[in-house]
Amino acid sequence: MSDYYSINGQLVKAEEAKLHVTDLTLRRGYGAFDYLRIYRGQPLFIDDHLERFQHSADILGLELPMTKLQLKHHVAELIAKNATTEAGLQFFLTGGYSADGFTPTTANLLILQVPLPARSAELFERGCKLISYPYQRDLPEVKSTNYLMAIYLRKAMREAAASDVLYHSGGYALETTRSNLFIVTHEGQLITPASGILKGITRNHLLRLASASIPIEERPIKLAEVYAAREVFISSTIRGTLPVRQLDEQLIADGKPGPVTEQLMAQFREHVEAYLAITEQTMLIHS
Amino acid sequence: MSDYYSINGQLVKAEEAKLHVTDLTLRRGYGAFDYLRIYRGQPLFIDDHLERFQHSADILGLELPMTKLQLKHHVAELIAKNATTEAGLQFFLTGGYSADGFTPTTANLLILQVPLPARSAELFERGCKLISYPYQRDLPEVKSTNYLMAIYLRKAMREAAASDVLYHSGGYALETTRSNLFIVTHEGQLITPASGILKGITRNHLLRLASASIPIEERPIKLAEVYAAREVFISSTIRGTLPVRQLDEQLIADGKPGPVTEQLMAQFREHVEAYLAITEQTMLIHS
Repeated sequence: MSDYYSINGQLVKAEEAKLHVTDLTLRRGYGAFDYLRIYRGQPLFIDDHLERFQHSADILGLELPMTKLQLKHHVAELIAKNATTEAGLQFFLTGGYSADGFTPTTANLLILQVPLPARSAELFERGCKLISYPYQRDLPEVKSTNYLMAIYLRKAMREAAASDVLYHSGGYALETTRSNLFIVTHEGQLITPASGILKGITRNHLLRLASASIPIEERPIKLAEVYAAREVFISSTIRGTLPVRQLDEQLIADGKPGPVTEQLMAQFREHVEAYLAITEQTMLIHS
Repeated sequence: MSDYYSINGQLVKAEEAKLHVTDLTLRRGYGAFDYLRIYRGQPLFIDDHLERFQHSADILGLELPMTKLQLKHHVAELIAKNATTEAGLQFFLTGGYSADGFTPTTANLLILQVPLPARSAELFERGCKLISYPYQRDLPEVKSTNYLMAIYLRKAMREAAASDVLYHSGGYALETTRSNLFIVTHEGQLITPASGILKGITRNHLLRLASASIPIEERPIKLAEVYAAREVFISSTIRGTLPVRQLDEQLIADGKPGPVTEQLMAQFREHVEAYLAITEQTMLIHS
């Protein structure tokens, strides 16, 4: 637990951070969400995350009480107050306190600092197992607070000893509960779905990094193509790039992380380092 | 606003009723929900509602902190404290305060008394307009806090001057955002979907009432059958039975409430009166 959370631009002691029970996100699951990672005290790719948070809010018709620039400064203030080096930040824009329990009102903006999950080095070396499940997220292009299916599926995941669940719809693979999907075909093409999904920030950076050296296609992926792929990996803010060695009972190729996956994992790590070096330098100049 | 809400079995002044921001229902939309109506100080069909609330909680793996009997007594206490005659009661069983923001913990139980929406007599006489939208609720047999699509669709509803949105999937009509669907065929059969929906308490009572005089089938209904039906109506705790005169741009039959709908509306009103008379009598005996 961190020391301070932010509620509507005010830093509040974590244990005192409360919302009134009439808030529409509590009662109706109607709210915008985002999540970024703090590395060495820097909010990684914060501009991308705030842009997406704004986009989610716009689609849901919820108004941010600050500009993106004000929000960025406020995040810096929160990180400084908590003296954070490594953590996650969850952003929520809620439906607000609603008298009729259905109509959004003035949104509440929450920012919660959360501990990072333990990282298993072995999982990243061996690759993870996914199970498939027929589902498409509601308003897939919006990062919302609706994780009903994701949390409901925890039991099935645990029983299958899987790391995540791959959603599919109409025969097409989409995304996992909290990550984007990539496959590498036997022809060496990198493919990721273009629609019906949340466009992850890590996904977008990976596509830009990969485009210099690998042929890329953003298009629908048949579930059968995933089982038959040469390589499969997933990407997210928490995981970066995580190889997939198994989908349901089927091993992907020989069940070992492939060279394209490993190349992109390394490139992404370097890319993060370069980003941090630039922001640290900018901070030195401004201090 | 009522004077008191209930949080975990404690009556709390409404304005002081708050939850900590780490609750999983706020952050992830993971919670069980129910709604009942208080008529003349009596919680209508409370046993049915508590049974369903328990069922939703079971599927979500959330534990009620009271037995159904304790909860029933507690509701009576809340109604007495607020001296309520006519209102709605919203029940929430949340995912609890979660350190990792993903794993449900000890559930919080909230009960909020809410004002009833204004009832338009004209709407019930003329019938309402629905618009159709391709969607199936997540975990449809669970009454959860996930109303993301329902609230998102408010704009489309308003623009079409519609009262509700009829969800359909794979060519089959399911339910509206907050009501069950019934059609009467030209052969005089009463039909309502059997699966892929929330089984409403009003729906279940209507089926029992109708079974004495009308042939009933619970089966999938093609969307085309709704457009072509002789009568269409929807049912819910708030609305009771509401005739549908129009779906999208298509009038249902001659656009007037039909005789089966009107018969069931009358029968349901009598049924509610009979229920209230029995519970009032039971109260007199016990007082």
